[in-house]
Parts: sequence; structure tokens; C-alpha cells
Amino acid sequence: MSLTDQLLTTLDAGRDAAVARLVEWLRIPSISAQPDHAADCVRAAEWVRDQLLELGFTASLRQTPKHPVVVAHHPGPEGGKRHLLYYGHYDVQPPDPLELWTSPPFEPVLVEGPNGQRVVARGAVDDKGQVLMWIEALRAWNKVAGGPPCAITAVIEGEEEIGSPNLAPFMAANVAELKADVAIISDTGMWDIDTPALSTRLRGMCFVQLDIKAASRDLHSGMYGGSALNPNNLITKILGDLHDANGRVQLPGFYDGVPELSPELRAQWQALGFSEHDFLGAIGLSVPVGEKDRGPLERLWARPTADINGIWGGYTGPGSKTVIPSEAHAKITFRLVPGQHHEKVFASFQEFVKARLPADATATFQGGGASPGIEVPADSDFVKAAQAALADEYGRPAAMIGCGGSIPIVSSMKDVLGLDTVLMGFGLEDDQVHSPNEKFDLRCFHQGARSHARLLAKLG
Amino acid sequence: MSLTDQLLTTLDAGRDAAVARLVEWLRIPSISAQPDHAADCVRAAEWVRDQLLELGFTASLRQTPKHPVVVAHHPGPEGGKRHLLYYGHYDVQPPDPLELWTSPPFEPVLVEGPNGQRVVARGAVDDKGQVLMWIEALRAWNKVAGGPPCAITAVIEGEEEIGSPNLAPFMAANVAELKADVAIISDTGMWDIDTPALSTRLRGMCFVQLDIKAASRDLHSGMYGGSALNPNNLITKILGDLHDANGRVQLPGFYDGVPELSPELRAQWQALGFSEHDFLGAIGLSVPVGEKDRGPLERLWARPTADINGIWGGYTGPGSKTVIPSEAHAKITFRLVPGQHHEKVFASFQEFVKARLPADATATFQGGGASPGIEVPADSDFVKAAQAALADEYGRPAAMIGCGGSIPIVSSMKDVLGLDTVLMGFGLEDDQVHSPNEKFDLRCFHQGARSHARLLAKLG
Repeated sequence: MSLTDQLLTTLDAGRDAAVARLVEWLRIPSISAQPDHAADCVRAAEWVRDQLLELGFTASLRQTPKHPVVVAHHPGPEGGKRHLLYYGHYDVQPPDPLELWTSPPFEPVLVEGPNGQRVVARGAVDDKGQVLMWIEALRAWNKVAGGPPCAITAVIEGEEEIGSPNLAPFMAANVAELKADVAIISDTGMWDIDTPALSTRLRGMCFVQLDIKAASRDLHSGMYGGSALNPNNLITKILGDLHDANGRVQLPGFYDGVPELSPELRAQWQALGFSEHDFLGAIGLSVPVGEKDRGPLERLWARPTADINGIWGGYTGPGSKTVIPSEAHAKITFRLVPGQHHEKVFASFQEFVKARLPADATATFQGGGASPGIEVPADSDFVKAAQAALADEYGRPAAMIGCGGSIPIVSSMKDVLGLDTVLMGFGLEDDQVHSPNEKFDLRCFHQGARSHARLLAKLG
Repeated sequence: MSLTDQLLTTLDAGRDAAVARLVEWLRIPSISAQPDHAADCVRAAEWVRDQLLELGFTASLRQTPKHPVVVAHHPGPEGGKRHLLYYGHYDVQPPDPLELWTSPPFEPVLVEGPNGQRVVARGAVDDKGQVLMWIEALRAWNKVAGGPPCAITAVIEGEEEIGSPNLAPFMAANVAELKADVAIISDTGMWDIDTPALSTRLRGMCFVQLDIKAASRDLHSGMYGGSALNPNNLITKILGDLHDANGRVQLPGFYDGVPELSPELRAQWQALGFSEHDFLGAIGLSVPVGEKDRGPLERLWARPTADINGIWGGYTGPGSKTVIPSEAHAKITFRLVPGQHHEKVFASFQEFVKARLPADATATFQGGGASPGIEVPADSDFVKAAQAALADEYGRPAAMIGCGGSIPIVSSMKDVLGLDTVLMGFGLEDDQVHSPNEKFDLRCFHQGARSHARLLAKLG
């Protein structure tokens, strides 16, 4: 029997025990946002530290200003070529609203679903179940080969659900210790239960708050209407100009550096058979917005956008108040793709606003939350190995998908540690992430573990 | 000595006593908005009722659901031709913020100003001082001629500062009793201390709240940006189109029926020497908005406008939230001029929005607060008499001015009682109406009383 077959046989035989371990971990309510669950966060960290200690890792809890980071190391075989950094998180979202759960969020249950059994609990897929997949793969390697075929570093944090405030500083303070060749993360999804996926594109972001001021005080719209500048009128005039009639963003130079999709990728995405009709139908919409000459997945994954997340000015209470306010405000995010620079977009937005700003108005711009779009080179050894592992496991090629949102840890990996990230995730669209009745299909959990074992074999 | 000279001499001789009466009335804190001043409102009503009883009127307090209305009648001379309805209000605005007053708001003081003595107190000019001017004129008529030269009805309400909720119903319930030929109100201003004014144009109003809805829930701007309709983007696109590059409102048919100024009125307004530079400078602005091909007073008094009083949608708290909201909202008022119909403007706004509304969005429209623009016919006998009285008193013609805002009581006079209104006011721009240190120049008070005595002589 080949090494890989031995690994898979071991995982298959240990499937129930792996599920039992997952259930044990899921019982710990490690809600990072709630101070009275701080001790539970420590317990969840200790639990996963102990798993890694069992597998021959050196592993410990490392203090941060809030919840500890579990860091573990295994040197791998002597003369091993590669060093992999696995990242995950042991913290979970608050389970509210509790009344919508069909079973208590921290009392995991196995229930039957269309794809067989699933475990229902807060954290099932995000991210305890997905972390345990690669730990189970390492367990199989430990049993079959005495240890992993590469040097391994594991970083499992406890603050992902609160924005990872202490992770980048921790990584920056420990750059030498965390040196590796690539980061591997399982915290994303598959295309569908039969089609594995690698997320190779993430949009970045440029956030701006725009504050417009005009008169020195609020004015009566009868006394001053027709003479005094109204910042509400002005902000709609300016921001109403963000898009042209074809859905293109009108900031100067906004599309500079935005690459065209390769014909191969375009063909791959078309082959996925994505139904924008269904995607929009699920949220009560039917007509897509965005650039008219671009395809749906291209618009979602590979084209930049501009969205006003918030706008406010003047009187917003009940009834009417005939005021010309002195201020108006908006919060805008630009979703960026690789090739764009958030500093340039920020500057271009200022230019765009100032070009439309009358002499009497002032505009101020507060930034925040900027990150670049990220593309994992599809031809790297690591991506190729992951593609091969997934193709072996699923009998079909992995979809090379994008993600319209940002995953800040991927930026940190690049910025702080200089690492590209392989995002190999096994969640499904109906997993209820962050919602009541979060679940993880055991088939996904098990095939995820098998895929990780295969990936290690490819990289070993 | 002519009758008019006798009246003026009497007023001049009684000037100090008139000021003493004003001070007495101003000591009563008749704040209509504050329930614990309800008894003070009654006291203020009784005080003015007693003044009118002294002058031979039948006068009483008439109950409403809140503060009483003082109604008084004098039949005038037998066979008198005319019946005048004087309107005013005995209630005052809350004096807050108290710490900005240089003397207690209900302890009137006489202080020296650039135009001589002024009385400083809440209600000095708005409206107790201005009501007492015509009562003092009636007092002089009583002394010199035994009574007024016309039939007089006086209506002095106690809810003007809270929007007169009970006045129109009260008038509607007493139409026969309140029958008259014209309404005379002193609750407006002069052009400057040397130049009297009649306000003959008031803009009306059409208020609309626009609510736009799109997706069935709030969306993540990363996951959905580039595909899902954003109501914030849409509302800026729609409302940013309200005005064209020349400041004209782009609603279909918006300017239908808007009359051009007569050359005479245009010349009169130009002769007023209004400085828009100073008007805007006082509120920190320098460049007028509105229609580029119109003069400043024309824009403020005789042209319709569109102002967004409030706008809101999505996340408006601190920091960022990358949401595509499901709703966006705005409150808009259109200021209207005579010749426009608020129902048509409301319908036209709906048409304007719907023409710009994509299939996935719904828009709802809530009206409220509509009133027509009003123009007092400048050639009526009453206006001509007021012009003559003011010209006699001031030695120069009255400015025939407009008012950019609405005065709801003027609409009610027309709608409920069928009366045109002569707005002959004696306030000055620096009177601090509704603000700390409200004042009324005694010269204005005295010349106002003299002007009212003259007006009665013209109409008698």
C-alpha cells in the first residue's frame, strides 16, 4: 500500500474518533468578543495545544493583550525541503440570537442532512472544524510516518472574530520564529459539495469617510433656500457621480493597473455555471449592477467597486424639519483588485471630490481599513500541489475561485511574514457561518482531512 | 389739530406708559412648549384680554385642547364700512440656553443700543411687543375718538411657537364669528430701522419623505459589491440629479406657472440694495447657490427651490462597516411660489424618482406640511392704505418684500376664513428672535403703534 493510501486508510478508520474530538472542542464556548468567556478562550487554546503536543509538536500558549495565540512547531524530517505555516482560529462568534438555534450552540449534535451527517454547533465550520481537518491529517502522518513530511509551524489565534487586533503585532514581534515558505489556511469554502475550490483572489479595500461642511450653523430652508449651499444637496451631487451610466467608477485613474482576466481563468469561471439570477434572487433582487460589459463572477471577484456604506446629514427623525444643515457625511468603501493601490485610490477620491466642491464647502477625508487586493500566483508549487491533492480526492479539478471580500490575515501573512497563502477551504454556502445553527457537513470535514493529508504528501 | 395728529400726540404722550405695559406683559413666562408654564399662558391671555376689555371690546378666553385663544370684538362706529381682524400670539419660545442671556429672560430691562433704548426679554418682539403696538393704537383711538373707526376682531393665540395645532380648527369652528374683510398681522420685520416694509410674498412648501428599498436584508459589500443594488448609491444618483448645472430644479414641469417678476417689483427690490455678500457672510458662506440667471432677492423670495433637509442610510456610527444597506431615505422640501401647486410638485417628484428607479428598487413617498405660495395683491385697498400709513410715518415708501419661508397662519387665514393678510411688521434683523437676549427697539415699538393708528385712520 502506498504511503498516501496508508494515510487515507488511517483517516477513514479514525473518522468517528476525529468527530468525537471535534465535538469535544466545540463544547468550549470560546467567544472572543465576550469578556466573561475569556477563560473559555484559554481552555479552547489549551485543548488544541494539547492535540499538537500529542503529535510531537512543541506547543504553547503565547500571551497577547487579550486572548492567547497557540504556536506550535514540528521540525519535520531531517533535511526536509519545505516549511509550512498553518493558520487557524479557535475563537467563535457570539451565538445570538439564541432562540433561533434548534439545539444549544455549545452542545454539538449530529443530525442528518442532504449530504449525510452534519455537526451543528457554533464554530463547527468557522473555524474549529476546518482547523481540526489539518490536525487530523497531521495525526495520520504521525501514525503512519512518525511525523509530518515537512517542517510545520501552526498558529492558531483567538481573536479572529474580533478583527485580530493582536495577531499582526504578535507576528511582527516573532518574524524569525514564524519563518516558513507558505501559509495554508482552511477558513473558506468549496464551490459545492462535489467541487473543491482554492480561493486565489481576494479583493482589497480602501475605506474613506467623507465629511462635508458648509455654513457655520444649521439654516432655515425657507430663509436661506435659493442662496445658501446645502451640504446634503452637494453630497448627493458629488457621490451621485461616482458611477457612469455603464456602471464604471468615475474616479480618475481608478482602473489603472486593473488586469484583464486571462482567457483561461475566464473560461474556468464560465464553466462554473454560476447563476447570478439565483445569487441575487436569494436576497430579493434580480438585476445586477456594476460594469455592464463584465461577467458576474468577474464583477464580484476581479473588478473593483465603489459602495456608499453609510450616508447621513441634517434631520433624520420623525416628521419634517425644514433645515439646511451645515454638514453632510458618507462612508465609502472601494473594493480593490491586485494592480490597484489603495493610497492612489484614496488620493483619487479626494481629487474627485475636490473637483466637484464649490468654494464654500470644505471636505475632509478619514481613511481606515485599507488593504490591497491579493492574487495567489496560480502557478506556484504550493497551489499546484493543492490542485493536485484536491483533484485526487474529488476526481475533478478544483475551482480557482475569487472572493469579493478581504481576508485581513492573508494581507498580514504577506506584509508581515512575506508569505503567500493557499486558501483551501471546505465550507459550504449553507453552513450558516455567523448565524444560528452553524453546521459543518462531516463529509466535508473528512474529505478536508484527506485532502490535507494528500497535500502534505505532495509537498513532502 | 387733525384727528391723526391727535392720535399721534396721544401716543407720544403715552409712550412711557405703553412701555410699562409691555414690560408687565413680558414678565409673564408664557412658554407654550412647557407644560409647567400652562398657568402662565392663561395669565398672559388674561392680561391681554383685560387690555381689550378696557378699550371697550367684548373679550374672553376661549378654550382649546391646549392653551386658550383670546378673542375680542369691537363693533366700531355705526355704519362703519370695514371689519379688520388683528392676529397675534401671546406665547413665547423657551428661553434656553439661559446662560447666554445677559439678564433674566422674564425680567425685562431697558438698555441703550445704537437706535436708542431697547427692551430685552423673551417675547419682546415675538410677538408681545408687536401685538401691543396695535393695542396701543386702539387705545389712542379709544381716547381720542371713543373707539376704533372700523369693526375690529382680535385673535391672540397661545400656541404659535408650537405650530398652532389648535388655531385652524378653532377658526373653522367659528367662521361666522370671525368674519372680516382682511387680516392684519405684526409678526414680521422692517427692511431696516429707517425703512418700513410690507411682506407681500410668502413661499409655500411641499414636503416629501422618500424611502428607497432594495435587497431583502443588509449585505456584505465584499460579497455582493459589483452585483447587488446599493440604495445609498442609488439615492445619491437620483437626488444628485435634482438640480442642473445652472441651479435649476429638474423636476418635470416644476416651473410651470411660476410668474416672472414685474419690472416694477424687480426695480423696487434692486433699489433695496440687498447685499447677498453680507447675508451669506454672516453664516460663513460667500458664493450663492440657486438659479444662476436670477437675482438674490428673486431667488430667496420669488423662485422655488429644492433642499434635502435630511438624508440617511446604512451604517452611520463610528469607524467602518462594509455594508450594502437594504434601505436609504431622504426628507426633501420644495419651497413654492404662487402659481405652483404642491400636489403637482409632489406628483412630479414621484415621476422624477420613478424615472430613475431600477427594477429592483421600490420607492415610497410620504407627504406632509404642504402649503401654497402666497402673494398679497399689492393693489388691494388694504395694502395701499398700509403703504400710505407707513410712508406718512417714515417719510419714505415701504419696501414691498418677500419672505422665503411660510407663515402657516397666513395660509389658514386664506383657507379657513377666506382673508388676505397684511403683514406689517416692525422687527429688525438683530432682534435675536428665538435666541438669547431677544430685544425690541423702543423706536420700532413706538413707530409701529403710530403706524397702526395711521392705518386705522386710512381705513376708517
